[in-house]
Amino acid sequence: MAKHWKTMDGNMAAAHVSYAFTEVAAIYPITPSSPMAEYCDEWAAQGRKNIFGRIVEISELQSEAGASGAVHGALSAGSLTTTFTASQGLLLMIPNMYKIAGERLPAVFDVSARALAGHALSIFGDHSDVMACRATGFAMLAASSVQETMDMTAVAHLVAIDARMPFLNYFDGFRTSHEIQKIEVLDYDDLAKLVNYDAIEEFKADAMNPEHPYQKGTAQNPDIFFQATEAINRFYDDLPDTVADYMEKISKLTGREYFPFNYYGDPEAERVVVCMGSACQAAEETVDYLRARGEKVGLVIVHLYRPFSPKYFFKVLPATVKKIAVLDRCKEPGALGEPMYQDVCALFAEYAPAERPVIVGGRYGLGSKDTTPTQIKAVYDNLKSYKPMNHFTIGINDDVTRLSLPMGEEINAAPEGTIRCKFWGLGSDGTVGANKNAIKIIGDNTDMYAQGYFSYDSKKSGGITVSHLRFGKNPIKSTYLINNADFIACHKQEYLHQYDVLRGLKKGGVFLLNTQWTDMAALEEHVPAKVKRFIAKNDIQFYVINATDIAQEIGLGNRTNMIMMSAFFKLANVIPLEDAVKYMKEANEHTYGRKGAKVVAMNDAAVDKGCDAVIKIEAPAAWADAAEEACTCSCCSDRPDFIRDVCDPINAQEGDSLPVSAFLGIEDGRFPSGTSAYEKRGVGVLIPEWNKDKCIQCNQCSMVCPHATIRPVLLDEEEAAHKPAGFETLPVKAPKELAGLQFRIQVSPLDCLGCGNCADICPVKALEMKPLDSQMPQSENWKFAVEEVSDKSDRVNIHNVKNSQFAMPYFEFSGACAGC
Amino acid sequence: MAKHWKTMDGNMAAAHVSYAFTEVAAIYPITPSSPMAEYCDEWAAQGRKNIFGRIVEISELQSEAGASGAVHGALSAGSLTTTFTASQGLLLMIPNMYKIAGERLPAVFDVSARALAGHALSIFGDHSDVMACRATGFAMLAASSVQETMDMTAVAHLVAIDARMPFLNYFDGFRTSHEIQKIEVLDYDDLAKLVNYDAIEEFKADAMNPEHPYQKGTAQNPDIFFQATEAINRFYDDLPDTVADYMEKISKLTGREYFPFNYYGDPEAERVVVCMGSACQAAEETVDYLRARGEKVGLVIVHLYRPFSPKYFFKVLPATVKKIAVLDRCKEPGALGEPMYQDVCALFAEYAPAERPVIVGGRYGLGSKDTTPTQIKAVYDNLKSYKPMNHFTIGINDDVTRLSLPMGEEINAAPEGTIRCKFWGLGSDGTVGANKNAIKIIGDNTDMYAQGYFSYDSKKSGGITVSHLRFGKNPIKSTYLINNADFIACHKQEYLHQYDVLRGLKKGGVFLLNTQWTDMAALEEHVPAKVKRFIAKNDIQFYVINATDIAQEIGLGNRTNMIMMSAFFKLANVIPLEDAVKYMKEANEHTYGRKGAKVVAMNDAAVDKGCDAVIKIEAPAAWADAAEEACTCSCCSDRPDFIRDVCDPINAQEGDSLPVSAFLGIEDGRFPSGTSAYEKRGVGVLIPEWNKDKCIQCNQCSMVCPHATIRPVLLDEEEAAHKPAGFETLPVKAPKELAGLQFRIQVSPLDCLGCGNCADICPVKALEMKPLDSQMPQSENWKFAVEEVSDKSDRVNIHNVKNSQFAMPYFEFSGACAGC
Repeated sequence: MAKHWKTMDGNMAAAHVSYAFTEVAAIYPITPSSPMAEYCDEWAAQGRKNIFGRIVEISELQSEAGASGAVHGALSAGSLTTTFTASQGLLLMIPNMYKIAGERLPAVFDVSARALAGHALSIFGDHSDVMACRATGFAMLAASSVQETMDMTAVAHLVAIDARMPFLNYFDGFRTSHEIQKIEVLDYDDLAKLVNYDAIEEFKADAMNPEHPYQKGTAQNPDIFFQATEAINRFYDDLPDTVADYMEKISKLTGREYFPFNYYGDPEAERVVVCMGSACQAAEETVDYLRARGEKVGLVIVHLYRPFSPKYFFKVLPATVKKIAVLDRCKEPGALGEPMYQDVCALFAEYAPAERPVIVGGRYGLGSKDTTPTQIKAVYDNLKSYKPMNHFTIGINDDVTRLSLPMGEEINAAPEGTIRCKFWGLGSDGTVGANKNAIKIIGDNTDMYAQGYFSYDSKKSGGITVSHLRFGKNPIKSTYLINNADFIACHKQEYLHQYDVLRGLKKGGVFLLNTQWTDMAALEEHVPAKVKRFIAKNDIQFYVINATDIAQEIGLGNRTNMIMMSAFFKLANVIPLEDAVKYMKEANEHTYGRKGAKVVAMNDAAVDKGCDAVIKIEAPAAWADAAEEACTCSCCSDRPDFIRDVCDPINAQEGDSLPVSAFLGIEDGRFPSGTSAYEKRGVGVLIPEWNKDKCIQCNQCSMVCPHATIRPVLLDEEEAAHKPAGFETLPVKAPKELAGLQFRIQVSPLDCLGCGNCADICPVKALEMKPLDSQMPQSENWKFAVEEVSDKSDRVNIHNVKNSQFAMPYFEFSGACAGC
Repeated sequence: MAKHWKTMDGNMAAAHVSYAFTEVAAIYPITPSSPMAEYCDEWAAQGRKNIFGRIVEISELQSEAGASGAVHGALSAGSLTTTFTASQGLLLMIPNMYKIAGERLPAVFDVSARALAGHALSIFGDHSDVMACRATGFAMLAASSVQETMDMTAVAHLVAIDARMPFLNYFDGFRTSHEIQKIEVLDYDDLAKLVNYDAIEEFKADAMNPEHPYQKGTAQNPDIFFQATEAINRFYDDLPDTVADYMEKISKLTGREYFPFNYYGDPEAERVVVCMGSACQAAEETVDYLRARGEKVGLVIVHLYRPFSPKYFFKVLPATVKKIAVLDRCKEPGALGEPMYQDVCALFAEYAPAERPVIVGGRYGLGSKDTTPTQIKAVYDNLKSYKPMNHFTIGINDDVTRLSLPMGEEINAAPEGTIRCKFWGLGSDGTVGANKNAIKIIGDNTDMYAQGYFSYDSKKSGGITVSHLRFGKNPIKSTYLINNADFIACHKQEYLHQYDVLRGLKKGGVFLLNTQWTDMAALEEHVPAKVKRFIAKNDIQFYVINATDIAQEIGLGNRTNMIMMSAFFKLANVIPLEDAVKYMKEANEHTYGRKGAKVVAMNDAAVDKGCDAVIKIEAPAAWADAAEEACTCSCCSDRPDFIRDVCDPINAQEGDSLPVSAFLGIEDGRFPSGTSAYEKRGVGVLIPEWNKDKCIQCNQCSMVCPHATIRPVLLDEEEAAHKPAGFETLPVKAPKELAGLQFRIQVSPLDCLGCGNCADICPVKALEMKPLDSQMPQSENWKFAVEEVSDKSDRVNIHNVKNSQFAMPYFEFSGACAGC
């Protein structure tokens, strides 16, 4: 078979295979599963055929409850039916899942496993959702990587058809669903050869049909319900063998060996970890690392989680095992342990070898908490103890119930020769897109493997993006963020102040900064002392490029991404530069060709400039001793405890370092309100300027501001006497009891997000959107308004209520920082 | 404390206590939980006050999904909130349950645990629904009896308030929810003294409130979600102690000792069963039975299922235990074992005493399958083996996967002196109501304990009811149907032919038959041979009463129930007859007083007649050898396999005897259609008579008949030539191609349910409702129509399609029995 490689994420891998086997897909979108349904919808619109030569029929329902009902209906009518979901969406499907399993219908649910909302919502990955469905009677099949997602999805569909059994086919949300990997793509012709067509025919002949009616879904009374429930046993008894058979077929097709449980490690391991999902990949790296150091360790990778087969488990488990740690990516408060831990306990209680091993369980990776080889090594280290800790956690510091394992030194378990690159970008600045292109260029044009993972914060507008790219000669198993980088790029100079951008850059690594501070004097002035020290003490190769100005010059406006990609290829040295230039220019032709030669030429110029305009900076030796000037402003010293201890670290991308104790007293998920007052983001590009000559004092601008950054204020004589210079005011118009006061509309430039609602709604066009920089003096005015006038908010409210045509929502001025 | 006793079912017991602690109840009805909400709604309408002196605010939502959302909202606003549900209703609440638990909100969900719909729907009891919620973070508290339901519901509310933890408070659907028991009622004043009012104040102060706003339900990213999740550990760690504390308080109040796990049996038991829910009561009887025979056995009764506390488990488990059987009332296909079995395995894997006991698990009681001491004895017997069977079932005959334990002889484990009475009645004939009154009369007027359980079939109109009543000097723990009766009454003589009415009547027991066959000749003629033999061979005291005629005579119409109750009191000898008569007449006064003296007098007459009109029948010795005459009719000999092997036993109330193999090939829950053609019920009181002189041949009567028992037929000349005598016909009116045929509307009297739709819709009043008996000759006509004319259904369809103003649904005449 000719191998066909493509760079894609886990969602596309699952969708690619599911599309092949699907006749009907009933869908409802939910993060992180939505792209699967979107891909299928797009392919159907393009007329792509499944292996039966038909276009998949796709229906979006009103919710996941409806989607699962439609799935049940389509299956009952004899259609091979698929859906895609996660998290609460999957929970809404539970009632129908019992029905689908009870009626032996061959559904496949592709699930990008995600946390469930409890104390808080998390859109990120863990196994809480799939574990909540383990009682439904669905078979459950897990993949650990993007490649395995493609392969396991085929197994799920093939066995669903053959054994007439529904499958929950899952992989980790975000870590696998959104990780881009260069993988081998299964060919529809090859898949078609593996299908049991007799079973399909039988399924269709057996479907509900008015031509040969039967009844289903009847009520059964105590007399027969139990017996009928037991009649299904044989299907579950036989299923692991059927799964193993189809895994063998997929293994033959791909050369990748799959079993219900795979084993990785020392054939005579004494300490074994049992794990499921993406962390298995990091665990494989860890096993390699430890075995290279003479440790007898191994890993059981769970693929077929339900039915849980003792036969296949013991087939791979070394007889030498003495201690087992079961890692669960979920939490069941009140249970003796997490589900897979209890499974393994039950397994050994019944099928005990001569001597039972010690079994402990631990939680990891909840809500996409990064799971690294260092953490997994701690799990193996724990098993060295005479009495290993049970019910431990890794990846966090639990200073309350003290369940977290002690971490050893950070280890680097990735294979020799992996190149790791990290990029700090601004949401929508094109960094992520450029990085995806870079992966594709390397993946599709060379024999190297490539991996990309993109982490975002929750601030959709003007948030940050951190791209994690790896390249190497071997398949990349590092299913965790880059903590030991060869190359770091920062696409926004302000981030040097906000974030610890250089953390994890290796000694002698490359740091590329997009900045307008291109000369030494500017760098001396603006680069924070902490960054200077890091560069000097770690022999960092420091480069700057003024991509912002270059983009303007060559006509690309604010689109710096092509320039930065080119600079990356020059400095990171993943492939020869001339090849990279060639591939980038080919990509330009491909991407922009139909927009005309001029656009192509501009982007080609960006490629050339990106290589040429990089400036190497020799860090002065004195940087090693650079010292911060302590900030003495009130907003730095007067921050409430919660802001300083919890919010500030989170906003500085340091939330991972918060211990469990940071959440004592707010275990129910509560957060104080008004925290954004302490987080001056300054991300409005255009913000409103008040024109007092037009204003009619209706206050509607203040009403519609979703962030309360535009507020009416009223000054008495004394206040007016010492207002800042630019603080222009008007005599208040109404009501009578406020006569004599001065009125002003005050904007907070650093809080405003620039949505323009205020300018839009103003009936007299008294607000005009102007660039943020030109409005910065307003910060002083805001500070005066908030600090001097805030305690007289009553009079503002009187004015608001009496003047506005809307009711004024209740608000108080909080003692917010005026922006320093 | 003055003890206050009342006769009530489990639903009322839960509702009584929950009402006390509830401020808001958001509800949606589902069997078998609906009465809880109904009671609360009624009490609220009557102005009953909770312990806070307020009327409970009750809202019915659009589904259980909405109810759980409203519960979440009400809790967030600081209201003590309760809901009532079961089965799929509970599944719809799962997403909100994660939220409620994550936010530490003190909800109580009262759940009458019920099976989940898989291959078939079951409205009956098992633990599948609550087990599906064990991952949500709710505390889970189980009760085993009606009395415990009252006591545990108090614990649930008190701890929910004290520990701010939501509780799933459950008891077995039907077996407990609908079992009537004489129990001690908890007094609101006593309950009020146990409440932690500081906790309530704190909860309310902490609720969401615009006066002191905070935010909740935020999104958390990978940086902090895991840590925040671990911050809750201490609440779960502490909960078992809090539960134990409040159980101690309830124990002090009631004299009934409760712990998270209760132990019953030999303090040095070697074989122990772990069980939860109503089967624990039957298991207690079994333990008594076995200990009386020298066996060292014991029982762990699970109350607090989550958090599952090793501390309290080992506190009660005898150190002498060698073998443990865990009984689960649910099934999780694909798991290594059911949930509680896996819990106990995990428990011993971690907290192993010096020598680990053998642990096995078994399933029982799915969908309210009756669980008897004989079955539980089989579980203890299984533990005697060197290697006991694991994953067994009891209560069924699994002849496929052979997991069912072998049953020993039927044992009678109820305490000496228990009187067991069983009544076969017709749905809506008043039998159940009379039995409920009988229990109340005995429960409320004597120091005897009383229990009532009522089993119905699924045929709402004209179905059968079997009432199971027990009376005794000790609390009644027999949580299973009566299989060893002192007294059996049959309120409908036809049942002697349809059902094995006498099964389980003890040697020398009393059999009372309501019948119009009051003389020996009639009895000789009508009583089936099987019944005769049973009576004669088992020294049955056989009594008859013609309650039907008596009721007519004294003006009670068809209401025979008071007469039958009186006869019961005379014969069953539960309390002295003169007391019973007095109590019954007092009850008449109470019930009918406001309807006037005449009605009271009629019912008093029924009491007197019931005692007097009972006739003792001396069974002739020859009855011992009575022999059946084999029926040779075609409908008895020509029944399809599925009808004979599956439907007939089910309809004869013998479905319990069907083995698992009866369901092979229909594991997905399918049943053939058309089975009702083989079940001639004859329950229509008035059925339609066709008047050919009015009929316009529109066929609408046939269209609207929901049971297809009224059909147009068309005869050709040959058929018309040998039609039965009463088979009147008309020349067909239209269409042309059918000219020359004869038309008739034919009714099937024994299939018709007498709904009257046909008569209502007939535009020319050609159908008139007449008593079934007068229409029985139609059966011959139906037989002729079905057997002789059915293969010409095409022409009927042509006629239908062309004549009817509606489209005719597709149907075929099946070769149905004409009723023999």
